[in-house]
Amino acid sequence: MEIVIHPIGVAHTPIKTKEEAPIQGAHRPELTGVIEVDAAYAEGLQDIEQFSHLILLYYFDRAGEVELLRTPFLDDNPHGIFACRHPCRPNGIGITVVKLLERSGNKLVVAGVDVLDGTPVIDIKPYVPSFDCYPDASEGWLEGKKGRGKPAGRE
Amino acid sequence: MEIVIHPIGVAHTPIKTKEEAPIQGAHRPELTGVIEVDAAYAEGLQDIEQFSHLILLYYFDRAGEVELLRTPFLDDNPHGIFACRHPCRPNGIGITVVKLLERSGNKLVVAGVDVLDGTPVIDIKPYVPSFDCYPDASEGWLEGKKGRGKPAGRE
Repeated sequence: MEIVIHPIGVAHTPIKTKEEAPIQGAHRPELTGVIEVDAAYAEGLQDIEQFSHLILLYYFDRAGEVELLRTPFLDDNPHGIFACRHPCRPNGIGITVVKLLERSGNKLVVAGVDVLDGTPVIDIKPYVPSFDCYPDASEGWLEGKKGRGKPAGRE
Repeated sequence: MEIVIHPIGVAHTPIKTKEEAPIQGAHRPELTGVIEVDAAYAEGLQDIEQFSHLILLYYFDRAGEVELLRTPFLDDNPHGIFACRHPCRPNGIGITVVKLLERSGNKLVVAGVDVLDGTPVIDIKPYVPSFDCYPDASEGWLEGKKGRGKPAGRE
């Protein structure tokens, strides 16, 4: 089965290289960017300003080779690709929860972006705490590793 | 730009018709299902059992026509498709946070599934509260509407 996806817009961000990209948007909440939705889809943004947070789905268009076992940035041991959030994954789709600061027509100014400038956006969904917020969920191997930096030279 | 996606597995659920599908998995936390990952991707599940909750990304393979303005199940007024979680959307990708009950090889028993039996799964990510949990996010037009049932006959 093949599913064909067409981007609905593009992310304009201050992140120009993989080295500059934060491990997660939540780690750099001050990073702001603009999600520019194609004019053909702009009507789909109606009422989006009612939400303080959005879920962005994007396509990791510059990701490297997919490996099913991968040593992620936040650890020195390999984990299954479905047990980490690394961009080099089957189907290469990423999600980030961002804060919506402002909407101006088909442009959304958001905080907490973590993707490379020019990344294709494939969907935008409202973040709804009663659907999406599980404060008691475990952090698995990420427990206690959030403060760690990105190891140099690791894809 | 065309992006080609290949499912990595399938969701086996007790939901056989659209009428039976809950509005969100969070509304029916007792609904359990099995995510069967293709053998070719099974290695990617290593350490997934360290996480209590997972984010499933799936393809709404039986969704109806895409409309950019849509009256969602939980309201009687139309909203932009990117301001609601309705399945009939550009690119037809859905996300649900589920609870991982058990892993048995390439099969994950999960609670809180909300998709039709046989829905293609395109990605699995660990849910990480420090990345994904924003308890103070606004609920927009969904505020106070969570207890509402699904209107009959509405796609």
